[in-house]
Amino acid sequence: MTQTQENRQFRLAQRPEGLPKPTDWDFVTEAVGQPGDDEILVGIEYISLDPAMRGWMNAGRSYIKPVKIGEVMRAGTAGTVLKSNHPDFAEGDSVTGNFGVQTHAVVAGKDARKVDTALAPLPAYLGVLGMPGMTAYFGLLDVGGAKADDTVMVSAAPGAVGALVGQIAKQKGCRVVGIAGGAEKCSYVVDELGFDAAIDYKNESVYKGMKQHCPGGIDVFFDNVGGEILDSALANLAFKGRVVICGAISQYNATDGMYAPKNYMSLLVNRARMEGFVVFDYADRYAEGAQAMAGWIAEGKLKHKEDIVAGFENFPDTLLKLFSGSNFGKLVLKVDAD
Amino acid sequence: MTQTQENRQFRLAQRPEGLPKPTDWDFVTEAVGQPGDDEILVGIEYISLDPAMRGWMNAGRSYIKPVKIGEVMRAGTAGTVLKSNHPDFAEGDSVTGNFGVQTHAVVAGKDARKVDTALAPLPAYLGVLGMPGMTAYFGLLDVGGAKADDTVMVSAAPGAVGALVGQIAKQKGCRVVGIAGGAEKCSYVVDELGFDAAIDYKNESVYKGMKQHCPGGIDVFFDNVGGEILDSALANLAFKGRVVICGAISQYNATDGMYAPKNYMSLLVNRARMEGFVVFDYADRYAEGAQAMAGWIAEGKLKHKEDIVAGFENFPDTLLKLFSGSNFGKLVLKVDAD
Repeated sequence: MTQTQENRQFRLAQRPEGLPKPTDWDFVTEAVGQPGDDEILVGIEYISLDPAMRGWMNAGRSYIKPVKIGEVMRAGTAGTVLKSNHPDFAEGDSVTGNFGVQTHAVVAGKDARKVDTALAPLPAYLGVLGMPGMTAYFGLLDVGGAKADDTVMVSAAPGAVGALVGQIAKQKGCRVVGIAGGAEKCSYVVDELGFDAAIDYKNESVYKGMKQHCPGGIDVFFDNVGGEILDSALANLAFKGRVVICGAISQYNATDGMYAPKNYMSLLVNRARMEGFVVFDYADRYAEGAQAMAGWIAEGKLKHKEDIVAGFENFPDTLLKLFSGSNFGKLVLKVDAD
Repeated sequence: MTQTQENRQFRLAQRPEGLPKPTDWDFVTEAVGQPGDDEILVGIEYISLDPAMRGWMNAGRSYIKPVKIGEVMRAGTAGTVLKSNHPDFAEGDSVTGNFGVQTHAVVAGKDARKVDTALAPLPAYLGVLGMPGMTAYFGLLDVGGAKADDTVMVSAAPGAVGALVGQIAKQKGCRVVGIAGGAEKCSYVVDELGFDAAIDYKNESVYKGMKQHCPGGIDVFFDNVGGEILDSALANLAFKGRVVICGAISQYNATDGMYAPKNYMSLLVNRARMEGFVVFDYADRYAEGAQAMAGWIAEGKLKHKEDIVAGFENFPDTLLKLFSGSNFGKLVLKVDAD
C-alpha cells in the first residue's frame, strides 16, 4: 500500500491523435487531500486499464462525457480506505470505484463500493467481479439473449471481457468459438478456458474460420474489436442472429475514420439485429451479475487471469499494451513498484 | 381483362450488372396453360413493381432464392380466375398471389388468395392491403416498436411503403418526419399524408435536416434506402433508438459494393439497435395487419396512391422508375394497354 503523502497523478495533457503518446499525459504530484463530511480518502492500489479509456480521451459526444484537458484520467480503481468521514466506511476497508489514474483519491462515500477480499483478491474486483465481468454477463445474456445450443462467437476472446463471455456462454450450454491473435492465445482460450474452437486472426482467414467452425451460422456475435472481423461475422450470421456491439478496439486509434461494416444488409437477409450497450446502464443489477460470477468461480467453472504490471509511472506504456494485443488477461496497473 | 389465348411473359435472360437493361429480359409468348387438379387459371390484370425485385435478380444467397435464368420474373400480381379446378375458387373470383410477370398463370389454389373488390379496388391489394402495407405495418410496429410520442423518421417517404409507415405512425401518436426527393414529393408527404415535416434529400443536407427536425434524436428510423441517409440517421439516433432495415434501394444497383454505414458505433453510444426483417415472416399475421389498415382506410385516416402504368410490354422501362425515383405512389403495371 502506498503510504506516501504525495498524490501522484496522470492528467490528460491533450487529446491524442491515433495511439496515445507520452506527451498526451501530464505527470503531476500534489499533496494528498483531506476528506470532508461524508468523504473518504482512498489509497489506490490497483488501476484498471480498459479499451474504453481510449474513447474517454476523445472530444465530442459519446455515452459518457469526455475527460477534460487537465483532468485526472478516468479509470476504475481498487484500494484501501486510509481515512473515513463516512459512517459506512472504516480505515482499512477495501473499496473500488472510478477514482482515476492517481495514487490517492478523496471521494464521496456514495461513490465507493466496499468489497470483500476474503472472497476474491482485490484485482479481481477490477476484472471478473468488476466492469469487465458485468459487461460480459449482461452483454451476452441480456443484449445477446444467448441460450442453450446457440453458437456464440467472441472477438478478443482472451481479453478481459471476451474470456468471460465465452465461459459464461459455456455455462449456458452454448457452442463457443473465440477469435484471438496467435497460437498461444488460441490454445489458451480452447485448452484453458474451454472454448470449443478458436480462430487465429493473425495467421488465418477469419471469414473462412467462421465458415468452418460455424456451419450453421453465428447466433450471437459478441464484438469487442470492430473492423473486418465484424464484417466477416455479419456475413456469417445465422437466421435471427444477434450482434452485440461492446466495443471496437481495432478502430479506437483510427485517424482516417472508422471501418464501416459493408455487410450490414445481412441483418435483413437473416432477420438479425445489431445492438449496442453500455455496462453502466446495468448498475442496478450488478449484484445479480456479481453473484452469478462469484458462484461459478467458487465452483471452479470460471477462470480469470489478470495481467498485472507494477509501477504507477508505467501507466502510459502499459495502456498501449491493450492496443498492440500484447496483454494477456485483464490488464491491471499495480501502483506499487514491487 | 386479357382474354387472348396467348400468355405473354418476361423471363430473366441474364443477371443484370447495375440497373437492369432491356437485354436482361426475354419477352416470350406461349400458349395459355390448362389447370390440373386443385389448380386455377388466372388472368393477370395488375403486376406489382417493387424494389425487392432487383435483389431477386441477383445470384447468391438472400432471404429468398434468386429467380433462375430463363424463369418468369417473380412478382406480386392480382387478377381474375378464368378457370377453376379448385373447390374454393370460381370463375370470376378476384385473386392475388405471386404469379410472376406474365399475363396468365396456372397456379395451385393454395397459392392464391381471394380478395373482395367491393372493399377496395384490385390494385390496392398489391399496395396498402398487400405486401407494402404489411411491410409498413409490421416493420414499424413490430420490429421498430414505435409508440406514442416517438419521433419516427422514414426514408423514401412518398413510396409505397414509406407513405404508409408515416401514416401508421401518426395513427399511433408519433411525430413523423419523411425524407423525399424534390419539393413536390415533400409537400405531398406533409400536406396530403399528414407528416409533421419532410427533408428534401435532393436539395438540402439530410444530416442538418435531421438535426433540425429531430432535436431530441430519432427514436425509430425506418430505412428503405440505405447509403448516406442511413449513415446520417445513425448519427442522429436517440437514446434506445431503433433502426428498421426494410431495404436499401440506393444500393441495389451498386456495382462497386454496398455503401457501408460508418456511424454504426452510434448504436453503442445510444444503446440502440439496428434490425432487419422480411415481411414474408409475418404471413400468419397478415389478416391482423390488413384488418387494421382497412379500418383506417374506411375511417379516412389512411391515404394510398397507386402509380399505374398501362401496357404489359412496358414492364422493363416501368421497373426502372423505382430506381430513378420518378414513380409517385405504389408502382403497378396494368396488363391491358388502356
